[in-house]
Amino acid sequence: MIVSAFEHPFLSGLLGDEEVTKLMSPQAEIDAMLAFEAALAKAQADEGLIPAEAADQIVNSVTSFTPDIEALREATGRDGVVVPDLVRQLRTAVGGGAALHLHFGVTSQDVIDTALMLRLKTVSSLLQRRLAQLESRLAELDRLFGSRRLMGYTRMQAAIPVTVSDRIRAWQEPLARHRQRLEAFERHGFVLQFGGAAGTLDKLGDKAASVRAALAWALDLSDAPQWQSQRDRLAEFAGILSLITGSLGKFGQDIALLAQAGSEIKLAGGGGSSAMAHKQNPVAAEVLVALARYNAVQLSGMQQAVVHEQERSGAAWTLEWLILPPMVQATGASSRLGVELAANIISLGEDAARGTDDPRNT
Amino acid sequence: MIVSAFEHPFLSGLLGDEEVTKLMSPQAEIDAMLAFEAALAKAQADEGLIPAEAADQIVNSVTSFTPDIEALREATGRDGVVVPDLVRQLRTAVGGGAALHLHFGVTSQDVIDTALMLRLKTVSSLLQRRLAQLESRLAELDRLFGSRRLMGYTRMQAAIPVTVSDRIRAWQEPLARHRQRLEAFERHGFVLQFGGAAGTLDKLGDKAASVRAALAWALDLSDAPQWQSQRDRLAEFAGILSLITGSLGKFGQDIALLAQAGSEIKLAGGGGSSAMAHKQNPVAAEVLVALARYNAVQLSGMQQAVVHEQERSGAAWTLEWLILPPMVQATGASSRLGVELAANIISLGEDAARGTDDPRNT
Amino acid sequence: MIVSAFEHPFLSGLLGDEEVTKLMSPQAEIDAMLAFEAALAKAQADEGLIPAEAADQIVNSVTSFTPDIEALREATGRDGVVVPDLVRQLRTAVGGGAALHLHFGVTSQDVIDTALMLRLKTVSSLLQRRLAQLESRLAELDRLFGSRRLMGYTRMQAAIPVTVSDRIRAWQEPLARHRQRLEAFERHGFVLQFGGAAGTLDKLGDKAASVRAALAWALDLSDAPQWQSQRDRLAEFAGILSLITGSLGKFGQDIALLAQAGSEIKLAGGGGSSAMAHKQNPVAAEVLVALARYNAVQLSGMQQAVVHEQERSGAAWTLEWLILPPMVQATGASSRLGVELAANIISLGEDAARGTDDPRNT
Amino acid sequence: MIVSAFEHPFLSGLLGDEEVTKLMSPQAEIDAMLAFEAALAKAQADEGLIPAEAADQIVNSVTSFTPDIEALREATGRDGVVVPDLVRQLRTAVGGGAALHLHFGVTSQDVIDTALMLRLKTVSSLLQRRLAQLESRLAELDRLFGSRRLMGYTRMQAAIPVTVSDRIRAWQEPLARHRQRLEAFERHGFVLQFGGAAGTLDKLGDKAASVRAALAWALDLSDAPQWQSQRDRLAEFAGILSLITGSLGKFGQDIALLAQAGSEIKLAGGGGSSAMAHKQNPVAAEVLVALARYNAVQLSGMQQAVVHEQERSGAAWTLEWLILPPMVQATGASSRLGVELAANIISLGEDAARGTDDPRNT
Repeated sequence: MIVSAFEHPFLSGLLGDEEVTKLMSPQAEIDAMLAFEAALAKAQADEGLIPAEAADQIVNSVTSFTPDIEALREATGRDGVVVPDLVRQLRTAVGGGAALHLHFGVTSQDVIDTALMLRLKTVSSLLQRRLAQLESRLAELDRLFGSRRLMGYTRMQAAIPVTVSDRIRAWQEPLARHRQRLEAFERHGFVLQFGGAAGTLDKLGDKAASVRAALAWALDLSDAPQWQSQRDRLAEFAGILSLITGSLGKFGQDIALLAQAGSEIKLAGGGGSSAMAHKQNPVAAEVLVALARYNAVQLSGMQQAVVHEQERSGAAWTLEWLILPPMVQATGASSRLGVELAANIISLGEDAARGTDDPRNT
Repeated sequence: MIVSAFEHPFLSGLLGDEEVTKLMSPQAEIDAMLAFEAALAKAQADEGLIPAEAADQIVNSVTSFTPDIEALREATGRDGVVVPDLVRQLRTAVGGGAALHLHFGVTSQDVIDTALMLRLKTVSSLLQRRLAQLESRLAELDRLFGSRRLMGYTRMQAAIPVTVSDRIRAWQEPLARHRQRLEAFERHGFVLQFGGAAGTLDKLGDKAASVRAALAWALDLSDAPQWQSQRDRLAEFAGILSLITGSLGKFGQDIALLAQAGSEIKLAGGGGSSAMAHKQNPVAAEVLVALARYNAVQLSGMQQAVVHEQERSGAAWTLEWLILPPMVQATGASSRLGVELAANIISLGEDAARGTDDPRNT
Repeated sequence: MIVSAFEHPFLSGLLGDEEVTKLMSPQAEIDAMLAFEAALAKAQADEGLIPAEAADQIVNSVTSFTPDIEALREATGRDGVVVPDLVRQLRTAVGGGAALHLHFGVTSQDVIDTALMLRLKTVSSLLQRRLAQLESRLAELDRLFGSRRLMGYTRMQAAIPVTVSDRIRAWQEPLARHRQRLEAFERHGFVLQFGGAAGTLDKLGDKAASVRAALAWALDLSDAPQWQSQRDRLAEFAGILSLITGSLGKFGQDIALLAQAGSEIKLAGGGGSSAMAHKQNPVAAEVLVALARYNAVQLSGMQQAVVHEQERSGAAWTLEWLILPPMVQATGASSRLGVELAANIISLGEDAARGTDDPRNT
Repeated sequence: MIVSAFEHPFLSGLLGDEEVTKLMSPQAEIDAMLAFEAALAKAQADEGLIPAEAADQIVNSVTSFTPDIEALREATGRDGVVVPDLVRQLRTAVGGGAALHLHFGVTSQDVIDTALMLRLKTVSSLLQRRLAQLESRLAELDRLFGSRRLMGYTRMQAAIPVTVSDRIRAWQEPLARHRQRLEAFERHGFVLQFGGAAGTLDKLGDKAASVRAALAWALDLSDAPQWQSQRDRLAEFAGILSLITGSLGKFGQDIALLAQAGSEIKLAGGGGSSAMAHKQNPVAAEVLVALARYNAVQLSGMQQAVVHEQERSGAAWTLEWLILPPMVQATGASSRLGVELAANIISLGEDAARGTDDPRNT
């Protein structure tokens, strides 16, 4: 039974996101690492660096390969990274002379970082979809209730009335910018990692650039020089994640405050209390605040990891492994809850408290 | 397959700690929550608040109870906390009139926070043992190599020679202080949470204080007024965890730098590279640095959660659930690796590079 | 005498940056706020919202206005923001009927946030120049020493030799990306804040949009709907600052490690020790690491401030005032030190230790 | 004009604390460093390490010494620390043979860290006084209004009524614990730093321990082995600061929410708005939240600095200089504002809105 709240047997009902967790799962990671090794063999065969038959054997073996997880676990404890033992196991599976052509000229970080980029790219698409879905719902709420009055609050005190549209705009506009940020990042940020032992691809000779380009094309990643010790793209992506959860945290905080004041919002759903049967708690709203503060904290760790000494820092790299996957999960949970919470808004604005005013009743 | 690095199918070989993970596991949490409900019933029966037979039935049922985890998960997603559904399931298990006497006068937070304190107390003992073990090993290294010369470095540049003793002292003394901090915390910090719906124990009338005292005694926790919105103790404990991993990070950083310089340390173990067969990497040393930076980041989140509005903040409380258990796991992993790394030090000081100098050879 | 290390009477020699500090100074802030009020009056006069003579008077008064700082200080303590008293003082300076047309229809946040954007835009240009300067110097070092061998280190252990070019590339490429990030941000991120009391510009009627566009044009900022509670752009900009200092921290860490190893770098400058006259410390290198970790920490606070409740959060806004200006100063200091440190590199690579090898000697 | 909000010409009216800022000022730092050098000379003379006349001359010179700040600034930029040039200037002031006996056997860190401890100790006393003052005021409010009803809120929603006493208890009890934490820290935490170039006091021979004890006694600090690379005590103290501001942030958040709801609190003071003359903003309450989040963020940096490599890390040490003094200032401002805000509470509880109910009217 899992401690992590994102995968916890019961807390995950609140804080989990099955779709994102699946994308970030070890199985997805292994699949992506195997895809890297297969595509590498093909690209190297095309460039004449390894025999075509060896590449075929590698691709075939990789397709049907199931790793010995316990051996991987033990080896990772020793080596600090899973790749040496994964390659050893794969070589056994490939067998014969072809085995020697597997993982040719590359290093652990090439496999791990590329496999990370492949998964983050899928996550980015997923987040875009969810943000768009939430924006649509907010647009719908705007159509339904936008012209109603809502008390505007500044410094937590009633100021002057605004419209529901004004408030919705403050929730919606940052989401559109976050989608733009993800789009801009997708154009350049999801890059192949390909450098070899010390980043120089020395074993590939004059074929290094062409193999790299072919590999990037095959994996549908951007082609760029190796970036083993240049972690700014990952920290930038983490920053977008934190911006997303931050804006959704603002949305959640506003909903919780609206529910506290009571007369300007009507919500479906909401959780019960073990002590007070009459209470309806806007649980999702509060969780959005918690997830925003969580990611805001974590981002600091991704930025600490930018101080990545020399050709490859085990310390900074391991720190990313500790921090980034939970940030992705938190963003998944936040986007899921944001969509759910917006769907549960039955009414907004000054007439919200009147039962007959529910537009779903008409 | 789990995303969290502390429980990940292969990363846990590096970053996991089975003992600590078990103490923080959902099963341990459920056990602790059930222990709370059983002890509560007994204490309330002793004070005549509920019938003795009801208490007996509750204790018996709790002992053999196995929750429906999927139902807990779904309910937690709705209620924001597992307790309402756990109590509902428990009431079904207890059955009859006794069921109504279960969970009498208390609230979700009483159960969750007390169950957390029970487990953290065990974790504290475990950490004390590991720190003492590490201190012993460092004392042994001091006896073996303490009088040797070691180049002293200030501002990362060679300064003047020190002794191995001087360096070991810098690793050892903070650990002794951390044990003292844990001891001091154990005297007052692991407190029962017992307050009822809004912290007033109003349903227990004039028996509130005596039930609380009896319950604290039964659970071997400190007795204190309810602290539902006073989270300073938890943040203080998290601070000690971060100090522990910070000092072990300093130890790891020093070992990695000694290994880089090369001539003053000899280490057993160390990991391999997928690209360079000749390399021996002091993996544990680097992971200690990563775990130190990890906890230093997380602590910020526990302090954010001290801003806990009104009688009970769902947002701040949920943030603790996201942050504290992984901090405990990181501290477990760090203390485990610290012990392992110290055990792997074969030689320290100026003669470390000479093979015949290994004291285990003599 | 100032406590802040960035402006401290002696620490600022190490950690200060006079150019950036001037751009972020209260005087620059007042100037920017006055520029806002003057441009506002002109734009409103052009749209017929206030009399042209009133606008002229306002512009003239603002030009020669010197605030009573002590009164501003006292009022800020009371109002939480400087603008109400600044406007009061300005109205006295303008006098007569024109005074009533000053600050028409706007609110404190319009003035403060716009004045911040004006200054950050200038900072961005400055940082671009410094990054370009550092990139040039690195390119020069590459020309001079790029083909030399340098020991490559992974996991802090000697791995295989790389070239000086390989290492310089790892310092240089992220800087080029940071300039691109600043450029991309400049195209959309420095936006006018213009919303009025609750963000609705209600007092400007149907002239709101045209006044806003004219004001943005006059101040050379992007025109966008008010964003009083949408703080993502500021957090994004802070993220770029942290990426810059992070990459420079990696550069500093590498230089410190090169200097520790000793034979592959020769540095001019470097600090003395009060206890060891023979030591040369690569002080700037270490300070780059400190500034990187500093900004990585601070960024977390800017992200916390994205959770900005309702129309305007005094708490989240004040948090930005505490965090962002020092982040800008840290980035200024880091870019200054990065340029200085690169200029002090006399030699890099395997021959660095040989005195005759200094290219400046040939 | 100063950028730092704590010393800013007008923001300091809101965020400053003159008393604490004075204690942390460079002048106080210089005074403390001079006190160290004087006490050192006396202690070394008493032990016969330097001539008594030299010590007298040093003490006399130090008393009337005024440093050349601009020279200190320039040298700090070069050396990374102020002490070498301060000692040089002091030696010139002392003159003759005695000058050579100044700063005998010690290093920069001995001076800087001891001078820091001396000032933090004074800060600790000041904070204790303010916390006690706030607790007294809360006790008074409890006497005045404790028995009144107050709506209890859990998960930001109205739950069941509590009493004003219940709420006040949640504000008051953590403050008492924070005073205990400061007291406990004062017993062991404010320690002399005394180690010499590499921490071994090698130049003092067998007098090292007795000089250290005499020096600690003279400066009224705890005597402990040098801790140049053991930064846990400073991080622990920073943790207490953050706990203090965190609890005061909870107090501020509660007050802001009470004021938002409107009927259960009556406050004197409160700030105006440039756009809405009718508004009364509980500015201090919001600033308490901002300062809590600020220190929660900063603490992460103090914990990062615990990873202090080798005998002395310039990077980690400089990071402390950047982080700790502003944390102290934030805690000063928070305690000042906490006291002011509590003094401005005119009424609490269900009758708060009735004007005649003001106890000051009776």
